[in-house]
Amino acid sequence: MLGNYLDKIRSTSPLIHCITNYVTVNDCANILIAAGASPIMADDIAEVEEITSICSGLVINIGTLNQRTIPAMLLAGKQANKLGKPVVLDPVGAGASKLRSETAKKLIDEIQFSVIRGNISEIKALSIGCGSTKGVDADQADAITTETLDDIIDFAKTYAKTTGAVIAITGAVDIVTDGVSVSLVHNGHPMMSKITGSGCMLSALTCAFVAANPGNILLAVVSSLGAMGYCGELAYDIMTVKSSGNATYRNDLIDAVFNLNGKILDKGARYELS
Amino acid sequence: MLGNYLDKIRSTSPLIHCITNYVTVNDCANILIAAGASPIMADDIAEVEEITSICSGLVINIGTLNQRTIPAMLLAGKQANKLGKPVVLDPVGAGASKLRSETAKKLIDEIQFSVIRGNISEIKALSIGCGSTKGVDADQADAITTETLDDIIDFAKTYAKTTGAVIAITGAVDIVTDGVSVSLVHNGHPMMSKITGSGCMLSALTCAFVAANPGNILLAVVSSLGAMGYCGELAYDIMTVKSSGNATYRNDLIDAVFNLNGKILDKGARYELS
Amino acid sequence: MLGNYLDKIRSTSPLIHCITNYVTVNDCANILIAAGASPIMADDIAEVEEITSICSGLVINIGTLNQRTIPAMLLAGKQANKLGKPVVLDPVGAGASKLRSETAKKLIDEIQFSVIRGNISEIKALSIGCGSTKGVDADQADAITTETLDDIIDFAKTYAKTTGAVIAITGAVDIVTDGVSVSLVHNGHPMMSKITGSGCMLSALTCAFVAANPGNILLAVVSSLGAMGYCGELAYDIMTVKSSGNATYRNDLIDAVFNLNGKILDKGARYELS
Repeated sequence: MLGNYLDKIRSTSPLIHCITNYVTVNDCANILIAAGASPIMADDIAEVEEITSICSGLVINIGTLNQRTIPAMLLAGKQANKLGKPVVLDPVGAGASKLRSETAKKLIDEIQFSVIRGNISEIKALSIGCGSTKGVDADQADAITTETLDDIIDFAKTYAKTTGAVIAITGAVDIVTDGVSVSLVHNGHPMMSKITGSGCMLSALTCAFVAANPGNILLAVVSSLGAMGYCGELAYDIMTVKSSGNATYRNDLIDAVFNLNGKILDKGARYELS
Repeated sequence: MLGNYLDKIRSTSPLIHCITNYVTVNDCANILIAAGASPIMADDIAEVEEITSICSGLVINIGTLNQRTIPAMLLAGKQANKLGKPVVLDPVGAGASKLRSETAKKLIDEIQFSVIRGNISEIKALSIGCGSTKGVDADQADAITTETLDDIIDFAKTYAKTTGAVIAITGAVDIVTDGVSVSLVHNGHPMMSKITGSGCMLSALTCAFVAANPGNILLAVVSSLGAMGYCGELAYDIMTVKSSGNATYRNDLIDAVFNLNGKILDKGARYELS
Repeated sequence: MLGNYLDKIRSTSPLIHCITNYVTVNDCANILIAAGASPIMADDIAEVEEITSICSGLVINIGTLNQRTIPAMLLAGKQANKLGKPVVLDPVGAGASKLRSETAKKLIDEIQFSVIRGNISEIKALSIGCGSTKGVDADQADAITTETLDDIIDFAKTYAKTTGAVIAITGAVDIVTDGVSVSLVHNGHPMMSKITGSGCMLSALTCAFVAANPGNILLAVVSSLGAMGYCGELAYDIMTVKSSGNATYRNDLIDAVFNLNGKILDKGARYELS
């Protein structure tokens, strides 16, 4: 069933406006193309409204945010809201600096996001002003474990209701909720944390899934997380055979998305929905 | 014959100043090195004139342009003109926003370009203020087909005369003209549109070909397009064997340029000149 | 013995704050992860002090420097000094423009660097205001040869005393000195100069080595250079087998770091210490 959401990207080729950090921007562009979408990167305040207008979705990623791009993020987000286009937020490193936490807060206050996707430390930093972020990775103390899972689900549901966004907390297990329904996605591989950009790529990809499937955002997000996680598993298998490392793994991950289709995804996706 | 133009890059190692977008900048640097040139990226207004002065060519790519880099583009371009160094323009996404269209127009008004290379939608947006650009890809409605080829050639010749630049319109068939002679380059593979940056890399590469072969810009451009297109074909063959995807394809494409020499290019290039 | 320095990165996972150019930033992030460190990129003046505070080391790389990032470099460096955290400078292209030379000078005047790593032309440009830089590569006229080696060692020792930093001049042979002890590192392969970013990656990696081993900066730097150089050799062996090119070589180089451990490094490192 999740496979249909991917096939819809391939059949409609949504154009995705990315305001994203310069560290992983190339990978974000290539993974969007791999999934059948088209990327356009534009972050100048003089053009972002127009660019958002010709696109099917907008992803705002605050890694390497700066004084020049923050106003552009706000403007683009508002334009997307005005035109009813989905907007995805990736609050990279929220909690690591006041600038990131406050910018994320301002974005959430002024823009209605369709999806907010981050690790548990980032989402906690957004919602309750606590939780420590070790740079751009989740803090060990925040880890999603069998013991903490129920609490984190409750927290995510509450935050989804507060923000009106689908909340996607990704980690060893991914939690997706719109405040009512909850899905756990079990795909993925620890190797995904050994490359830069797996989170950024996932947020960009999620925007494509949502843009192509506006009728069911929750399942579009679940499908995106399943697709990315499953490709992470496939890429790890390839890495084992090749005895390669993280740089090649990154390419194999994007390649796996390129070769993924709805049928394969349906077989590989492991998730619960309640 | 085209092979000599490539060999000239390898024997002279021109230093190429790139003011280019942050999405594909790494690929542009690596493809320049692959061809035997040296890249230097610099976009601050306080240093671009000096950097252009020590270089053999300048490429201006307006993807992710911004208020800070636009004045630097103008300054660098004028300096290149003053010193008689070739300047290549890649009008990425012209037509997608007023900022891009107007910046491209301003650049063309104030700088004498040696070469303007883009897809058909971008070049149309520059020349006649129409043609729609679907983000950074050419619009289907603008596609170069057997029916439209003659018209597009006429259009390109006129625009070459207007601008005094060699016009290179790349697509399924590439058209190169200085307003008098016309060349069609038949190399290339549709897979090249499945990665980000094939256009940006081609523009950077073209600057190296022109910088190393200032005596015949038209043929230097034809050689560049033949080289890139042929490497796109070779990389596709490798992709088929490996069952890889677009991320690996990108690497194989740059690798193919790295391993290309004049003799191989002469055998692989497929073009007409009239 | 050098292997312990690498193992210490893997056992402590230092977080490294990178203010670095947008050309090779993705490779810098991935090589840090490959070695067991964690990267965070942040260059806005409003957050760099905080980001430096949560990190174990800071690397400042002046490639693609601009008016917005220069004050951030100064602020971050001073904060690192205040907190006693190591700072590494990579003066990319010093000598190629006044902006680069003067910025590097200002950084060295106002910040106490733990390590300054560059090619011979860059380091000469910093120290004596002469030496020509061909873009971002060392000038042939400055090359480290058997004839010039002793002079360059003397020069490096003097400059280390002047700056109070460990000086690492990398080339066919790498010279590392704190002004008293001198080490020559013989690892490496000419292929490393056929990709963009081998210097930038090395500087980022060196920051991780120093951050994880603050007790012996000189040997931490030697270990970093040995590790990078040896991985460059291993990657070349792989390239020969695969008949690949520079794009794949870059990935194989990072992969080699990912698969490196202390024992392998101890066997592969070739260096002298006096």
